[in-house]
Amino acid sequence: MQVQAASSSVFLSAAKPVWVSASAPPVVRVNSLYTAKPSSLNSDSNSMATAAPKWAQKTITLPPQRRGCHLITPKILNEIGSDLSEFKCGLAHLFLHHTSASLTINENYDSDVRDDTETFLNKIVPEGRSAPWKHTLEGPDDMPAHIKSSMFGCALTIPITNGKLNMGTWQGIWLCEHRDHPTARKVVVTLNGI
Amino acid sequence: MQVQAASSSVFLSAAKPVWVSASAPPVVRVNSLYTAKPSSLNSDSNSMATAAPKWAQKTITLPPQRRGCHLITPKILNEIGSDLSEFKCGLAHLFLHHTSASLTINENYDSDVRDDTETFLNKIVPEGRSAPWKHTLEGPDDMPAHIKSSMFGCALTIPITNGKLNMGTWQGIWLCEHRDHPTARKVVVTLNGI
Amino acid sequence: MQVQAASSSVFLSAAKPVWVSASAPPVVRVNSLYTAKPSSLNSDSNSMATAAPKWAQKTITLPPQRRGCHLITPKILNEIGSDLSEFKCGLAHLFLHHTSASLTINENYDSDVRDDTETFLNKIVPEGRSAPWKHTLEGPDDMPAHIKSSMFGCALTIPITNGKLNMGTWQGIWLCEHRDHPTARKVVVTLNGI
Repeated sequence: MQVQAASSSVFLSAAKPVWVSASAPPVVRVNSLYTAKPSSLNSDSNSMATAAPKWAQKTITLPPQRRGCHLITPKILNEIGSDLSEFKCGLAHLFLHHTSASLTINENYDSDVRDDTETFLNKIVPEGRSAPWKHTLEGPDDMPAHIKSSMFGCALTIPITNGKLNMGTWQGIWLCEHRDHPTARKVVVTLNGI
Repeated sequence: MQVQAASSSVFLSAAKPVWVSASAPPVVRVNSLYTAKPSSLNSDSNSMATAAPKWAQKTITLPPQRRGCHLITPKILNEIGSDLSEFKCGLAHLFLHHTSASLTINENYDSDVRDDTETFLNKIVPEGRSAPWKHTLEGPDDMPAHIKSSMFGCALTIPITNGKLNMGTWQGIWLCEHRDHPTARKVVVTLNGI
Repeated sequence: MQVQAASSSVFLSAAKPVWVSASAPPVVRVNSLYTAKPSSLNSDSNSMATAAPKWAQKTITLPPQRRGCHLITPKILNEIGSDLSEFKCGLAHLFLHHTSASLTINENYDSDVRDDTETFLNKIVPEGRSAPWKHTLEGPDDMPAHIKSSMFGCALTIPITNGKLNMGTWQGIWLCEHRDHPTARKVVVTLNGI
């Protein structure tokens, strides 16, 4: 077992697989996990089932939302919460199926932060008469939407710890809708872990 | 089994592992997957082999391309397509080995979108005499290239569903070359799934 | 076995799981890996243990740093290096628990690149009297910090090959501190592989 000075946690070696139970505060619920090796579990099929890697995948449809940044953590948890609880340790991957919206992680409390972020995006990506875009067939908001999508990205990967998304206290999942016309948006969620 | 109202899909609980076959349109090919648990598969070694987690990793070399944004989905699929077909459900991770180019997902149809994105990047990151950069030894396009690389990022994670990259109809993989001089670029592709 | 023309590597099919040993230069240490299938390993419990998927998760606390971009590869490796060595092939995921700092991958050699990137971020995101933000309660540097966090992102996924992070020669992990007041920052590291 190693104890690292700069860290609040211990990181157990694979030689001795041990589950560290959640005695820390919620934000840092589990500091160290290793899968029990199948070879050490062959004698106990219940343990093996617990430690076996699992995959889950689902397509979520988010309802149409106005242009701007929206906190969607509750919507996502409503869709995947009960499935997350099957994972002690893992990763949740969210993948937006669109090129004119984006997913990002940011502040979950003050809606002004979301409004200011939308203000920033509109300030930095020119739109309308002053914009130099060639791609204008789908409206003045379309090319700016594509650019904003690449700036923030269309995918997120979030750690899973003890059955929950392991985000910071002030972190939330945002869907940023970059088009003027609200459209339903599809997100492929992939869960992987033990 | 749970049916969630806001979703077009069912998400099956781990208690009853079931493969949902692809009756939906191509974009949403599979809505819900869970690995069969090894414990329930011990009696059938063929099924176990199918459900066992697999990892694949490969370094791809992309040919030199001119400064700008390039659609590389066909090149990537040419390299990994037959390997992807081994995965029912999983994630594909692409990692560019460079700090003056980037990977992003955006529109796959109109090349004007790629040209306009290059226009945007050049507009937002100053280059040449007006630029305030200290790092200029490698040429006027070098420091702007580093900044653009962090703006769009050097890595992508894309869901795999039924042996294919599960992207939206209009999504494609772009390599954005930020240097003036075309250079071959290396991408480490890691596939993980069942 | 397939040999792909545009690539320097071979990508072995799942039918014949083979470990390719590291004869290539360090940057491209392993070109192709596939997990040995459990079904083919049942007769040899030692091999099975080696090939069994492993998960590790740990929360690292990074010491307070001044506003700007900081190379943290050595700090991260100091925390996870011995654990990385347990993985032949996999992915390392780093997730920052904050909304006013970011993680990115960029140049690891010349500190001017980090200074210039900070210059860019301050140039592009207005701060102080000229800024249009509504969210100002936590100081003039707070809203700009949130925006910068979404621009660069709070998470990284890096391939693991032969027990090491498989990054390019010039790539390093940066923590970008966007607040004026230095604060300790938490990073959840999740390792997954074989």
